[in-house]
Amino acid sequence: MKVAIEGEVRTLVAVWFEDNVVKIIDQRKIPESVEVFKARNSDDIAFAIKDMVVRGAPAIGVTAAYGLALAKMNGEDMESAVRKIGSTRPTAYDLFKAIRYMKENNYDMNAARRYANEISGRCRKIGEYGNELIPENGKILTHCNAGALAVLDWGTALAPIRFAKMEGKNPFVFVDETRPRLQGARLTAWELAQEGIDHAIIADNAAGFYMRRGEVDLVIVGADRIASNGDFANKIGTYEKAVLAKENGIPFYVAAPGSTFDFSLKSGDEIPIEERDENEVLFVNGKRLGPEESRAKNPAFDVTPAKYVTGFITEYGIYKPSELSQMKAKIERDLFMRV
Amino acid sequence: MKVAIEGEVRTLVAVWFEDNVVKIIDQRKIPESVEVFKARNSDDIAFAIKDMVVRGAPAIGVTAAYGLALAKMNGEDMESAVRKIGSTRPTAYDLFKAIRYMKENNYDMNAARRYANEISGRCRKIGEYGNELIPENGKILTHCNAGALAVLDWGTALAPIRFAKMEGKNPFVFVDETRPRLQGARLTAWELAQEGIDHAIIADNAAGFYMRRGEVDLVIVGADRIASNGDFANKIGTYEKAVLAKENGIPFYVAAPGSTFDFSLKSGDEIPIEERDENEVLFVNGKRLGPEESRAKNPAFDVTPAKYVTGFITEYGIYKPSELSQMKAKIERDLFMRV
Repeated sequence: MKVAIEGEVRTLVAVWFEDNVVKIIDQRKIPESVEVFKARNSDDIAFAIKDMVVRGAPAIGVTAAYGLALAKMNGEDMESAVRKIGSTRPTAYDLFKAIRYMKENNYDMNAARRYANEISGRCRKIGEYGNELIPENGKILTHCNAGALAVLDWGTALAPIRFAKMEGKNPFVFVDETRPRLQGARLTAWELAQEGIDHAIIADNAAGFYMRRGEVDLVIVGADRIASNGDFANKIGTYEKAVLAKENGIPFYVAAPGSTFDFSLKSGDEIPIEERDENEVLFVNGKRLGPEESRAKNPAFDVTPAKYVTGFITEYGIYKPSELSQMKAKIERDLFMRV
Repeated sequence: MKVAIEGEVRTLVAVWFEDNVVKIIDQRKIPESVEVFKARNSDDIAFAIKDMVVRGAPAIGVTAAYGLALAKMNGEDMESAVRKIGSTRPTAYDLFKAIRYMKENNYDMNAARRYANEISGRCRKIGEYGNELIPENGKILTHCNAGALAVLDWGTALAPIRFAKMEGKNPFVFVDETRPRLQGARLTAWELAQEGIDHAIIADNAAGFYMRRGEVDLVIVGADRIASNGDFANKIGTYEKAVLAKENGIPFYVAAPGSTFDFSLKSGDEIPIEERDENEVLFVNGKRLGPEESRAKNPAFDVTPAKYVTGFITEYGIYKPSELSQMKAKIERDLFMRV
């Protein structure tokens, strides 16, 4: 991803290993500043995932992979490191995939690098396949941030849009601000601004308004975990947008690499949903929004049933929910993914 | 409505006339403090409506009525006063109803008082009728603020909930925070807290999540303008919640007095939708949420088609969209409303 830092445009990834530390672009600070968080051990890695220094299912997976390799290099107790990192966030499947992969590969740093490269390359493929869905001057609505920050460089939902931009198709993106943590307004808008992709931030409440007015050509979102039947978990509010897309006859796509598919689950009912602190809803910029006496509820994800999904954009191609068994067969023949 | 000010519980209305000024509870300051805005002429009234010192269709109507009476008392040019007040906000029908009513009654202060009393009494009736829809321990989802602040004392959507509470039914309210201006988190939560009604603030994105989980018994919202066919305008996001309620088999009610019904319009397509400043989306508490380079779009209202409405809770009873002609007949026989 391109990032302008002090006037100079650099190419950055969201997470990397350098000088014996795992370096992570601190997503809590964007868009105000671009700062690098340095994780020196598995405690730092667990904190970074839990406190959302890094978020987005594929990026969480890559961070866990590097983190376990770092722990191994440090001579940490690996059982404890795995437990710490594995208990940070329950919903994103990539976390568990990455832990399994690293275990198989003896927590080797080269394996972590390969994991990161594989995820990056696969998201590039998502961009190539997804680009075919975007018409000239296409208007795409997206929810939360499934961009480079959530992956490494291409993003999942944003990868097709990056390709469309490179091909001169002039895409326009409706960016759901994505309350409560505002990953749309803060992260997706920032990524799009860095790459000069035309966009507008909207309140999550306005997504239906633009869909009903016929101003949205397609919706593309990411995913945190996808079950065998095509039900999937993603940022809270995704279910609302999926229902509205269907109601308005708008194609609704989910972009995710194989590492987000959990074929051990029959349906979305089995996906654990994280509830986060109520203060994420009650406070913005350190200031309370509602009265002192009021409580809030804060489910971080929701599950969207497969019937609302037009297709899954993956590194293997685009699959309807009813075709996921074909994709499962491909994953089982894929040396990297089948772990 | 009950309000605790410095530990003392008082009964307040949202707008009233006293000491030759129109006094308005300043809704921009709630819940941080309860302050009274004093309007001394039609310019102050126009400012108060436009800047949302007062908002909510019925309360805007009452403010306009008092404001025109004040202008008349001041010896202002009435054509200019009507023009100023009438051009503040385009969507809420009560504003135009109140202006017509005051014109008919020669801008008399007693007429303004009667207008306010009528609206208040009618919302009380809405509470009585709507209460019948709320079961014991009923869970109600509401959007924006259609409470006492939006009317005078009872509210529209909140009136049935107040009655349910008085009858000991122990209602619970899911309060959509209602971005961008957060009238749910700020105003509705505050009203409910003042009256000891159990509630939780949720991100607008979470409404569908709780509906799908079967935790919402019914939805009640207010309205800014209702067309003959039952299409209605209300705060942005209402359309999303209505579609989700239907998808999940949850009754969806619109609570509004006769003054919000615009039978001159065939359908919701004719309702003008106000677009407000993008900074309402981009800034919270004076701090920017997204990157400097990003723009926002900010439609203040949306139109929900009648097919999503289970019924309209009015002072005349509860009507399905297909029964609105019966209500029109009642309005035509209603001395106060037929103006």
